[in-house]
Amino acid sequence: MITVLVVGIGSGSPTQLTGEAIAALNRVDVFLVADKRSDTRDLAVMRTDLCRAVITRPDYRVIEIADPARDRDATGYREAVADWHARRARAYAEVIAHELPHGGTVGFLVWGDPAFYDSTLRIVEQIRSAGMDLIVEVLPGISSIQLLAARHQMILNGVGEPIHLTTGRRLVDEFDPALGTVVVMLDADLACAALLERFPELEIAWGAQLGLADETLVRGRLGEMLDEIRQRRAAARARRGWVMDVYALRSNRVGAPLS
Amino acid sequence: MITVLVVGIGSGSPTQLTGEAIAALNRVDVFLVADKRSDTRDLAVMRTDLCRAVITRPDYRVIEIADPARDRDATGYREAVADWHARRARAYAEVIAHELPHGGTVGFLVWGDPAFYDSTLRIVEQIRSAGMDLIVEVLPGISSIQLLAARHQMILNGVGEPIHLTTGRRLVDEFDPALGTVVVMLDADLACAALLERFPELEIAWGAQLGLADETLVRGRLGEMLDEIRQRRAAARARRGWVMDVYALRSNRVGAPLS
Repeated sequence: MITVLVVGIGSGSPTQLTGEAIAALNRVDVFLVADKRSDTRDLAVMRTDLCRAVITRPDYRVIEIADPARDRDATGYREAVADWHARRARAYAEVIAHELPHGGTVGFLVWGDPAFYDSTLRIVEQIRSAGMDLIVEVLPGISSIQLLAARHQMILNGVGEPIHLTTGRRLVDEFDPALGTVVVMLDADLACAALLERFPELEIAWGAQLGLADETLVRGRLGEMLDEIRQRRAAARARRGWVMDVYALRSNRVGAPLS
Repeated sequence: MITVLVVGIGSGSPTQLTGEAIAALNRVDVFLVADKRSDTRDLAVMRTDLCRAVITRPDYRVIEIADPARDRDATGYREAVADWHARRARAYAEVIAHELPHGGTVGFLVWGDPAFYDSTLRIVEQIRSAGMDLIVEVLPGISSIQLLAARHQMILNGVGEPIHLTTGRRLVDEFDPALGTVVVMLDADLACAALLERFPELEIAWGAQLGLADETLVRGRLGEMLDEIRQRRAAARARRGWVMDVYALRSNRVGAPLS
């Protein structure tokens, strides 16, 4: 029997793991890691360092799995994606069967928390659909959303108000002050700039590389902070070859500003 | 100088604390606790057990602070609340000054994460406004939202879709399938029942006492699950004298159902 542990590792700093997550990591025989572009070597090193810092058993293995090529010429986009997902699931199932022929425990490390804008649980579901019996456990981790709020010493909701989490891609179409505090992830282009004309009163609380030594924070009126954020974002990326950032927007038309 | 540590303790289970949070708890000289109604004795015991389990220094103190009485007869509701906040802030400032006349570290324990629907950081801000200099640090904790998702092995967002966090009080006015997955907190009355007529397709993933030994989960079509949820909610409350629950709603009109 195969057990799959999907473990939220937060920012990757060992002190930000829960005891439960550390115990889970120590049960894993084989960690599966999707291979990524070369500019994330820094992330691979952080992952390796984290495992070394908290895993006491000497015999765990880390296996990289190449993502199958995606057929960009397929006539139907949906069919192409579905086919790619099926091939990826088979690739994982084959590696698991090869590495653990008599059963055992597979681990996936997830930056942040597996519940927010991460696809690992979809991959696990696809491996199941490919016919492999799996026992699954999910261990939550501290997400960048929580670190953003903690570092800015901020309650995300205004009194009795909602919190809305969305992506840079959707932000401009979706934004409405009535959504409460709007937290934006996966936004490489700072889509919020396009909101300024309609909502000049917006306040932003932004953070990048949260939980790491080079963590950086900006907070204030959106219109006054955009240049500073762009510069810090570029500098963070130049240092590590990657940048992960997240921000919260609030209109002072609803409830309290981000003070 | 006074340092204030606002520490997210998740469900209160020692294994769900981060190492960073445990280190913070060990720096605290005096924990301040708002006194609550007698039916939360069980929560007070959990808090005491947690401190005993993870704090190694023998000399920390736990001080209960009585909330000042609220003037229900005041002519203006806003003025009454503002006055009550100011009196509460003075009560905290007086206790801090009395307990730590030469400075030191004050701790607040927050169930879940201080960023989501918790007022501790507002109290800290009010103590500052009352004239006390404070250095503040916030330590995130695993929220019930994350445990809900982990236990249901669920990614909260549909592919590329938003997540909306709101309260039971706002849910019926606010609900729209376009909000994506809607996570509802602070809903003692299961306000979602009132959505069934308009949105019979809604799916729910519900959990109570998450992270505790008597944790309980329900998942399925909202219309088919409501009775079961009501029964389990009442049983959980009967056992402990309190119940904390949270749920996620998703319409299968947008993206994937909660499968």
